[in-house]
Amino acid sequence: MKVPEYLNMYKPKINNAIKRIYEKKLNEVKNPFLKDYYQELMDYFLVGGKRLRPLICIATYNAFNLERDDKIVSPSVGVEFLHNASLIHDDIIDKDDFRRNCPAFHYRFKQYYSKLTFQKMNKEDYGNSIGIIGGDSAFFFGLEAFFDNEFNLDQNLTAIKYYEQAFKEISNGVLIELDMVNRESLRMQEYIEMISLKTSALIEKAMLIGANYARVEDKFLQNISKYAINLGIIFQMTDDILGTFGDEKITGKPTNGDIREGKKTCLLIDALEKLDYNKKEKILDLIGNPDIKDEEIQEVKDLFLEAETVYSCKNLVNDYAKIARIQLDELIPNINQSEAEFFENLLKYVIERKF
Amino acid sequence: MKVPEYLNMYKPKINNAIKRIYEKKLNEVKNPFLKDYYQELMDYFLVGGKRLRPLICIATYNAFNLERDDKIVSPSVGVEFLHNASLIHDDIIDKDDFRRNCPAFHYRFKQYYSKLTFQKMNKEDYGNSIGIIGGDSAFFFGLEAFFDNEFNLDQNLTAIKYYEQAFKEISNGVLIELDMVNRESLRMQEYIEMISLKTSALIEKAMLIGANYARVEDKFLQNISKYAINLGIIFQMTDDILGTFGDEKITGKPTNGDIREGKKTCLLIDALEKLDYNKKEKILDLIGNPDIKDEEIQEVKDLFLEAETVYSCKNLVNDYAKIARIQLDELIPNINQSEAEFFENLLKYVIERKF
Repeated sequence: MKVPEYLNMYKPKINNAIKRIYEKKLNEVKNPFLKDYYQELMDYFLVGGKRLRPLICIATYNAFNLERDDKIVSPSVGVEFLHNASLIHDDIIDKDDFRRNCPAFHYRFKQYYSKLTFQKMNKEDYGNSIGIIGGDSAFFFGLEAFFDNEFNLDQNLTAIKYYEQAFKEISNGVLIELDMVNRESLRMQEYIEMISLKTSALIEKAMLIGANYARVEDKFLQNISKYAINLGIIFQMTDDILGTFGDEKITGKPTNGDIREGKKTCLLIDALEKLDYNKKEKILDLIGNPDIKDEEIQEVKDLFLEAETVYSCKNLVNDYAKIARIQLDELIPNINQSEAEFFENLLKYVIERKF
Repeated sequence: MKVPEYLNMYKPKINNAIKRIYEKKLNEVKNPFLKDYYQELMDYFLVGGKRLRPLICIATYNAFNLERDDKIVSPSVGVEFLHNASLIHDDIIDKDDFRRNCPAFHYRFKQYYSKLTFQKMNKEDYGNSIGIIGGDSAFFFGLEAFFDNEFNLDQNLTAIKYYEQAFKEISNGVLIELDMVNRESLRMQEYIEMISLKTSALIEKAMLIGANYARVEDKFLQNISKYAINLGIIFQMTDDILGTFGDEKITGKPTNGDIREGKKTCLLIDALEKLDYNKKEKILDLIGNPDIKDEEIQEVKDLFLEAETVYSCKNLVNDYAKIARIQLDELIPNINQSEAEFFENLLKYVIERKF
């Protein structure tokens, strides 16, 4: 089955499962401010997001089951909570007020602040403070996905362990990335390690959680892990390429963001590995400046093009795609055909995506 | 048994259990920055803190067991992680660089920043960013207390549910407190509700987690909950009184902090309930100003004294102590004598403490 088809089948169910967790919260609280808080958090969740991570969890479960079974939907949303929780904190750290053209969670409370009649706090602090707690809430709500469902105790406890591991790896990745901002010299291998943690870990855990609920034999877990990790690497590298050389009309993201933030993308690292000392220093000097001018952005882009970074990174993507493909080939004889197709198409989708 | 005696018996064991969780982390990571990060987090945990919450968890377990048993120590530290995690985020929200005379976690990374040779980020953002992730890490590490121990699956899953509930209630309390900052009119009842969430919930869950591992009968759970919630209310009210009228040499905290921050303490709310319009407006005008002068602090304190707030709040503390005492009296015939003494002494300790 194709990815969009699979997504159409499950997205409404996934969104309902997310809504159920929030509606339970909303019913529990009486304080008007808490009601607003949980409402804003629910709206933030439901307004955007492809729901790829729960979908991958569901597809893994279905791949090893004789028949598709909706009871996996409920625990599958755990990984979506974890994903959104880290986005909420990332947006505060990166000072991004918007994501997917929509207000970031902390920014919603900067807007909310304007409605207050008695304003003792400052607006920025107010938004950021509630944003910090918002991320925390989302991390914890994810746990609830593993409490109320139709599976057994041992499966739920294993899922919680994967959930904790996923957080640990994502946060290690985010920390390594933060550390990279303040380092001049970097190698592609460090970048790959960083994105394997920051991006791949949650995709891997989404699949392992699905496998855990389907009681998949241990012998398949390594193939699942490797497929997922390589898929995540491809996903992030493509994201980096689109972030600077994508079509803004399609991606919905300005192509100057990563350069302005000085983000350590595969393009940047490849350029720094290839260019001579002066050009390298030029790039390091320009990036990460919030007041960077348009012509300076173009200068950096031109240096990226001169170093043929897109070409090299796409080659690297193809190498990782080959590894993912090998893992998938070992799984295919043991899984259902429609899910085998799904995972084949998913691999194509992350390589070829334009948004 | 007296509280300090009980604490002496268990504090080294509690600290060892905390250390074990961090040493596992430190062994897992190779990246030098991640090693520094986990080391700083462990140092932050071990440098201060009374460990009252794990101690209360342990004492509840022991209260219902024929013999004291150290296997409870390992899961008892979960609540200490949750407590420290919220302190880490609170210190960022409140912009407190110090706690218990020691650097706050985010402040440690403002200091760490000075050691970096290539500084692309700004120092404040660097400290706060790592502080946000530090709190997140601590929230998740607390879960590990419920993975590796000698208890059964169902008990561990129940403990995780209590852990999640504790977070939810603490964060609801913190949010209500944040909302109160921007509200002029408040009643004591709202304050009590707020601290029942912010402070009591974790004490209650510490006891319920201990009870869960001791497989205490359901009929005792309500007494345990009520004792803990009232104990927490007393603890927080005493904290508020000491925060403004305590002896700085003993508490280690400056007595101008709460007034400068405009914190909604029981003293403030009591004063606002009692004073006339002009004096009330005077207080509201002065508090919450980071540049407040010493004589203005004194002015607020004088108005608190004029309203006899300490007297009224101490009376209220005694009312809550009576309720806690009633709950304890119902438990005492069913628990071990040394722990019965511990919980009696604990109640005295939180009322009479000077630090």
